[in-house]
Amino acid sequence: MKTRTMYFKSNKLYILDQKNLPHKIRYVVCDNHKKVANAIKEMVIRGAPAIGCAAAYGFYMGFLTCKKKDARTMREHIKKIGDILAATRPTAVNVAWAVERMKMVANNVVGSGITEMREKLLSEANDIFNEDIAMNKKIGAFGAALFRKKSNVLTHCNAGALATAGYGTALGIIRRAFKDGKIKSVFVDETRPYLQGARLTAWELKEEKIPYFLITDNMPGYYMSRGEIDAVIVGADRITANGDAANKIGTYALAVLAKYHRIPFYVAAPSSSIDFSKKSGKEIPIEQRAPEEVVYIGGKSIAPVGAPALHPAFDVTPAKFITAIITEKGVFHRPYNFNITRLPAVDFIEL
Amino acid sequence: MKTRTMYFKSNKLYILDQKNLPHKIRYVVCDNHKKVANAIKEMVIRGAPAIGCAAAYGFYMGFLTCKKKDARTMREHIKKIGDILAATRPTAVNVAWAVERMKMVANNVVGSGITEMREKLLSEANDIFNEDIAMNKKIGAFGAALFRKKSNVLTHCNAGALATAGYGTALGIIRRAFKDGKIKSVFVDETRPYLQGARLTAWELKEEKIPYFLITDNMPGYYMSRGEIDAVIVGADRITANGDAANKIGTYALAVLAKYHRIPFYVAAPSSSIDFSKKSGKEIPIEQRAPEEVVYIGGKSIAPVGAPALHPAFDVTPAKFITAIITEKGVFHRPYNFNITRLPAVDFIEL
Repeated sequence: MKTRTMYFKSNKLYILDQKNLPHKIRYVVCDNHKKVANAIKEMVIRGAPAIGCAAAYGFYMGFLTCKKKDARTMREHIKKIGDILAATRPTAVNVAWAVERMKMVANNVVGSGITEMREKLLSEANDIFNEDIAMNKKIGAFGAALFRKKSNVLTHCNAGALATAGYGTALGIIRRAFKDGKIKSVFVDETRPYLQGARLTAWELKEEKIPYFLITDNMPGYYMSRGEIDAVIVGADRITANGDAANKIGTYALAVLAKYHRIPFYVAAPSSSIDFSKKSGKEIPIEQRAPEEVVYIGGKSIAPVGAPALHPAFDVTPAKFITAIITEKGVFHRPYNFNITRLPAVDFIEL
Repeated sequence: MKTRTMYFKSNKLYILDQKNLPHKIRYVVCDNHKKVANAIKEMVIRGAPAIGCAAAYGFYMGFLTCKKKDARTMREHIKKIGDILAATRPTAVNVAWAVERMKMVANNVVGSGITEMREKLLSEANDIFNEDIAMNKKIGAFGAALFRKKSNVLTHCNAGALATAGYGTALGIIRRAFKDGKIKSVFVDETRPYLQGARLTAWELKEEKIPYFLITDNMPGYYMSRGEIDAVIVGADRITANGDAANKIGTYALAVLAKYHRIPFYVAAPSSSIDFSKKSGKEIPIEQRAPEEVVYIGGKSIAPVGAPALHPAFDVTPAKFITAIITEKGVFHRPYNFNITRLPAVDFIEL
């Protein structure tokens, strides 16, 4: 995608403001870790892998602000900036994970020359960023290989370049499949209440010139019943050891509909999304967000004053509805025995 | 419901402006048939039975405007006002049906005294209006009798007082069941793109003090999977001889989800909605409306400029997913043999 989710230049992190998409392309410029922390907190940038990368660069900029160079002060400073960044989105594992990686390198280089310290830390942030894109491209290749013909695929929410360092997971597969001539068009669920499909996924597809149709969340069944959807591809926020997958609210209903209509239902995510500590999806807590987010669209109420609304942000799709889980390590099929090896082996190679 | 969908007073039809609901309660005052025709065309009032009633009163007011009282002029005038009203919403059978009833009475009384003519015509319009409410109340009683306990029911779109002369079909059942102590709460799908659920159904339930929760159209699967929905009740725009039912887009997906979760799925409609000329739902044309209606919410675009969107306004739920069809003549179960008798007999009485 031409427009980058974020980029680091002259010691500043430029973050694409996703709150204004698709109407305005505007970058928020962050020259220290506090500004990055705010951007994550205020959802200027969202998507677990994306906020992990932003936090890594935030950490690097925070490190540069340390005035005194004695070891003790530096270690205290390292802890402080780590804490500030990790507190932004406590539920997203990627921020904490990226901050841990940065802290480890930082603590290791304390005592080295200033140039070396800076170089090593910047290099680690760049690694986190580049590794994420590389993983997505692998997911894209593994996933695209599953398509045998020009397909109409349906996706929900945004698991695209905007949710990652770039390229995307579910949308990365669509990108690669389109490049390989395997995509006819993409059905994009608008994804209420936040409209990530209408605002972000539609925008990414437009940027890439990939044909798409925006639909409301109550239309997929209609198109499935007419045989117009060949596959469903979604991302995942967390996958449990048995292959159950938590993702944006509405994913579960799509999976049931896909099953009934005998349409393949794919989940795409980096293997780091597999939570081996949880046996099944029943153990995943579902975040209940503010009802106001359902009642107001663009600041305007769509319902009677004081309307009681419910807002579960995610749901869990049981493994039995998932045709395959596509990771950077390969494609996995039922039964999902992640918990046996703990390190998924590639069981499908067609790159 | 305290606030009436429409009422006729001092030779004027007061129509509740549904475009402004739930934010403003405002009546459009119509003192002739042309104003009524405009109100129907511009969707100030919607819902097939409701616009049929409005057209009947419109016809009566149009009749009053006839200056010359000779038989030939009057018959021409009758035809003219009938044509104007029937042309408002050509797809809705109810307007044409109400206009036909009014025309028949009008043509029969031509030549009588002016007072008698007026009385007979106003009486016919009142009959159409009152019969609709009476039918809805019967539907409500038949439907409510199906509930055995305090239930959580889910509904889609608005099949309420606002879609009829009053009381409603699917929502009429909920009204009656609530009165009978059988409703715990109502899950209201917001029903994109027009948001009839959020704007109209939520408003009706609030007026009636019936507990409800507003949810987005991608949430029903989540609540069904948790066992929190006991039944789904929707209206119908047309039912074919085999029991297939066309209704607001999204109804079909709800029916598939209900079937998977073993939740009863009820369709409520007056028996006049049964189209004996169509064998199955495959023969029902699905209205494809303007994509802009998906892309814009409250005048603001939610998607990239020029986003291609799709907007099927209805879908068809096959009879096999429908637990029962509730009409004013009784409750019908599969196989739906409407086509044998042509006049449904009551097969369930518990009033």
